[in-house]
Amino acid sequence: MEQFRNIGVIGREGNGVAETLSSLLGFLQQRGLTAVLDEQVASLAVDHDLRICSRRMIGEICDLIIVVGGDGSLLGAARTLARHNAPVLGVNRGRLGFLTDISPDEIEAQVGAVLDGHYSIEKRFLLDVELIRDGERVGKGDALNDVVLNSGTSGHMMEFELFVDGEFVYRQRSDGVIISTPTGSTAYSLSAGGPIMHPRLDAIVIVPMFPHTLSSRPIVIDGKAEITMVVCDNNTAQPPVTCDGQLKMTTQPGDIIRVRKKPHKLKLIHPSEHSFYASCRDKLGWGAHLPAGDLDD
Amino acid sequence: MEQFRNIGVIGREGNGVAETLSSLLGFLQQRGLTAVLDEQVASLAVDHDLRICSRRMIGEICDLIIVVGGDGSLLGAARTLARHNAPVLGVNRGRLGFLTDISPDEIEAQVGAVLDGHYSIEKRFLLDVELIRDGERVGKGDALNDVVLNSGTSGHMMEFELFVDGEFVYRQRSDGVIISTPTGSTAYSLSAGGPIMHPRLDAIVIVPMFPHTLSSRPIVIDGKAEITMVVCDNNTAQPPVTCDGQLKMTTQPGDIIRVRKKPHKLKLIHPSEHSFYASCRDKLGWGAHLPAGDLDD
Amino acid sequence: MEQFRNIGVIGREGNGVAETLSSLLGFLQQRGLTAVLDEQVASLAVDHDLRICSRRMIGEICDLIIVVGGDGSLLGAARTLARHNAPVLGVNRGRLGFLTDISPDEIEAQVGAVLDGHYSIEKRFLLDVELIRDGERVGKGDALNDVVLNSGTSGHMMEFELFVDGEFVYRQRSDGVIISTPTGSTAYSLSAGGPIMHPRLDAIVIVPMFPHTLSSRPIVIDGKAEITMVVCDNNTAQPPVTCDGQLKMTTQPGDIIRVRKKPHKLKLIHPSEHSFYASCRDKLGWGAHLPAGDLDD
Amino acid sequence: MEQFRNIGVIGREGNGVAETLSSLLGFLQQRGLTAVLDEQVASLAVDHDLRICSRRMIGEICDLIIVVGGDGSLLGAARTLARHNAPVLGVNRGRLGFLTDISPDEIEAQVGAVLDGHYSIEKRFLLDVELIRDGERVGKGDALNDVVLNSGTSGHMMEFELFVDGEFVYRQRSDGVIISTPTGSTAYSLSAGGPIMHPRLDAIVIVPMFPHTLSSRPIVIDGKAEITMVVCDNNTAQPPVTCDGQLKMTTQPGDIIRVRKKPHKLKLIHPSEHSFYASCRDKLGWGAHLPAGDLDD
Repeated sequence: MEQFRNIGVIGREGNGVAETLSSLLGFLQQRGLTAVLDEQVASLAVDHDLRICSRRMIGEICDLIIVVGGDGSLLGAARTLARHNAPVLGVNRGRLGFLTDISPDEIEAQVGAVLDGHYSIEKRFLLDVELIRDGERVGKGDALNDVVLNSGTSGHMMEFELFVDGEFVYRQRSDGVIISTPTGSTAYSLSAGGPIMHPRLDAIVIVPMFPHTLSSRPIVIDGKAEITMVVCDNNTAQPPVTCDGQLKMTTQPGDIIRVRKKPHKLKLIHPSEHSFYASCRDKLGWGAHLPAGDLDD
Repeated sequence: MEQFRNIGVIGREGNGVAETLSSLLGFLQQRGLTAVLDEQVASLAVDHDLRICSRRMIGEICDLIIVVGGDGSLLGAARTLARHNAPVLGVNRGRLGFLTDISPDEIEAQVGAVLDGHYSIEKRFLLDVELIRDGERVGKGDALNDVVLNSGTSGHMMEFELFVDGEFVYRQRSDGVIISTPTGSTAYSLSAGGPIMHPRLDAIVIVPMFPHTLSSRPIVIDGKAEITMVVCDNNTAQPPVTCDGQLKMTTQPGDIIRVRKKPHKLKLIHPSEHSFYASCRDKLGWGAHLPAGDLDD
Repeated sequence: MEQFRNIGVIGREGNGVAETLSSLLGFLQQRGLTAVLDEQVASLAVDHDLRICSRRMIGEICDLIIVVGGDGSLLGAARTLARHNAPVLGVNRGRLGFLTDISPDEIEAQVGAVLDGHYSIEKRFLLDVELIRDGERVGKGDALNDVVLNSGTSGHMMEFELFVDGEFVYRQRSDGVIISTPTGSTAYSLSAGGPIMHPRLDAIVIVPMFPHTLSSRPIVIDGKAEITMVVCDNNTAQPPVTCDGQLKMTTQPGDIIRVRKKPHKLKLIHPSEHSFYASCRDKLGWGAHLPAGDLDD
Repeated sequence: MEQFRNIGVIGREGNGVAETLSSLLGFLQQRGLTAVLDEQVASLAVDHDLRICSRRMIGEICDLIIVVGGDGSLLGAARTLARHNAPVLGVNRGRLGFLTDISPDEIEAQVGAVLDGHYSIEKRFLLDVELIRDGERVGKGDALNDVVLNSGTSGHMMEFELFVDGEFVYRQRSDGVIISTPTGSTAYSLSAGGPIMHPRLDAIVIVPMFPHTLSSRPIVIDGKAEITMVVCDNNTAQPPVTCDGQLKMTTQPGDIIRVRKKPHKLKLIHPSEHSFYASCRDKLGWGAHLPAGDLDD
């Protein structure tokens, strides 16, 4: 008997997505499984008579959701699907990512193994962000990787105050700040000097972007903490807030941005042999096991 | 009634320690409290007839232990006292530290407040380190800040393998590696590019020292994880292991160094108004609340 | 006899500029010197009958130009005045800068000393930037601190190719790149991880902004080198180019940005006792001469 | 006619050196060239009746010197040979280096091309270091990559004062300091956060090692500058000085270390197609020319 019966397939147009999608649908058909597609993916799949649904509906009715594309596609799907219970499996369409760890030429072996029950499930938390103006909530968003408050103009500083659980942390002049989950710690946050955080860690990292004070460093806090940023009155621009790289809202001086963990988590499926550190070695080029040689060379 | 009845006083010779000690003992006497001194401190205190004990005994019999000196003195005392139940209060003798946050000229006000019951208690975990050679434990140590495995010779690389909870992380050529607690994250680890970790976070950071692979970055893992390092066979030197900056053991190729959280925690007392972020602003020079001005200047 | 006879005064509205200007003009009058003002400064000076000129004209006729304001004001003036021969002196209106090193309350002593001939002159080079599209120059600008090519959208990568003296350096995905002079090396470039470069060094530093490849590092090249960047065809946004933080041009995929040293240099006047390293200690908070203490504390 | 007539071959025992040496000597014999060997290399070459000389003598009589080994072997040879006029060519024995850019399997093609006159010569400067105690010189050394002053004990800070051309720069608490040439900027200095410097740049970089002051950053100064470091009186250890990773001298509190450019330069030969930036892309893993894809993925 199959582990999963109703399988949703989600994706986004992009290099090689159509080919990967075609392999995947063919393989699912071979296994006698019928997939449900979202609108975007349906337009890329040729010659099929599969059912087409909204992502929300797919979240409701499927017990496994396969995302075809890069990490970016999975980020988008994750934000929609986190509130549902179905686990998500990422099939890549080119370079491997940290979230999408099945490559197109291993679909049969690896998706097959997952369908046979050989997998592990990891829960990844998301961040909720709210924009408060004059005491009212005027915007909201969610992010699997990171929430970024930024001056919006390259080479232009902004100024904000940071509070954690109501406690004042600092007033900072910088290009902005990245609030990242463990999942996001190997993405944008890492480029900005943030630490790598193990996916199971219940922690959030706050990474300053080009801070004016040279001693400002990334701060790792409890995942249950509430982060509040106040846009200072002396900002002339309207600093934007992005979630996983997507523009979500534009702030004004005096606005409050509140970030905290979402109650729901994304269930991410990996083939059994998945290892976070192996992904790091592979994707970050750590060059595991250098040839043993003369250290004094 | 006093909150604390048996008060141990511990310290180490150093700039200004004698003066601070004299103020402290005078103040305790005024409050009608009798202190117990360790041998080192006793030799610095003049004209007293106080009881002198070993640190271990002080840990047994006292319900408050005051350490006079810098962060270094408190680190030393912490390693001894963590297995006992008594909370520890740090009185500085010059520059404020992250652990010793009462300055000499505020002894009456701040130690007084603590004695009156106005304080908070924070638990800080320590690390246990064991050196395994041919299957036998040949060395051990503990650290409140950090365990450092290092080539032992400046400008000379060493090579080691790192495992977390038995999983292979990387084989690395570098000057060494720093394993730091949240408490140590504002000390040596920070100089080496590690993130600041909030003291209440249950996490450990692994910070490479001048890694040969430029993409090696600090990794934050769960505080309950077990870290294992294997000294590679191609090392010509005998890499030392230090705990809080003190040399504890010297390794040989093939040795295994195992680091994990100690079961006991240090109870650190702070005056009520203590704030970790305020310490960061003060000691790291974050320059909180810059004068509001023209950001485009 | 006075060293300088025709003194131009230039500035920009801002916190405290009017007061500083008033002190300066009063002091020049006491010395029997008549100043020439630019339009912006003239509107801030009350009750005067001084001659008002364009900046260009001031550059032509004056043999000393005093800029009142912060480093930002001096950057703006520098770009206009570099082609003229007159040396420039910066009088600050608040926090000291790296370029404006006379504070408002030392005008009499320090401007007086300069007028008496006690000064040193430093030459600072500027960068010329040209935007080439389909073989034609469609934009240009100049910068004393830095030229920045940036994705224009926070959290969004761009992709470009970098060439130095016609030689291919790399193709990079990042938020952008900072090309900085030694003068700019203590400004934005420093926040982005660039090295400090001594003002007399004939060198340019290329600093990647949040590069996707973790091993990308700042590169210091000869000041006479020509830097070329090509905006890759896969960019969906129109990456802007800024000079000293001012938006100068917007690029399109396929555009070429060429940066090289300007033939003219800015002559910067300092009071005799000026020291670049003293400025670093002061403004970067290096804490020169820590109190001698116990290093093992 | 051959470009070079008297060819010295120099090396050091190590992985694969004997094989590479054998190929090289065979190839030189084919070309009718007779090599002169130093003692170390001679012991690795079997079945030969070549002349054996000291390195110093080889420097005198040869017009091309080939170093077989890694970058480390070339560093050692460079320090001896810089005072002579003969250019140096590095043949690697495994992983390519920045200095040794001919791989063992390309000896015929690439060494052949050099012998045919297809090469470029680059001049690389070295550093001279002197140790002054009580006004007398008590030690000296030279370095092609870097001079390192270090606490000598891992996790232990030292304190020193730094002067450039007699001007006070800072008093610093750190693990030590790296003084690097452009040649060394891709070696140890890079691991410590120093910038890459183009080999033709006439500059020196001063890189702090784990500085106690977080705002301490690498400083690039003119190659003609004289750097002086004073070991502070409060050091309890005897900080060692290394040249290219080799221990050269041990300092005492009050000692002065003086570093400046050597008058002689190393002439480094590269095959004609050599490019510094190509070496960086290759050895630092910059991943030139990523596959063009969707930047928004």
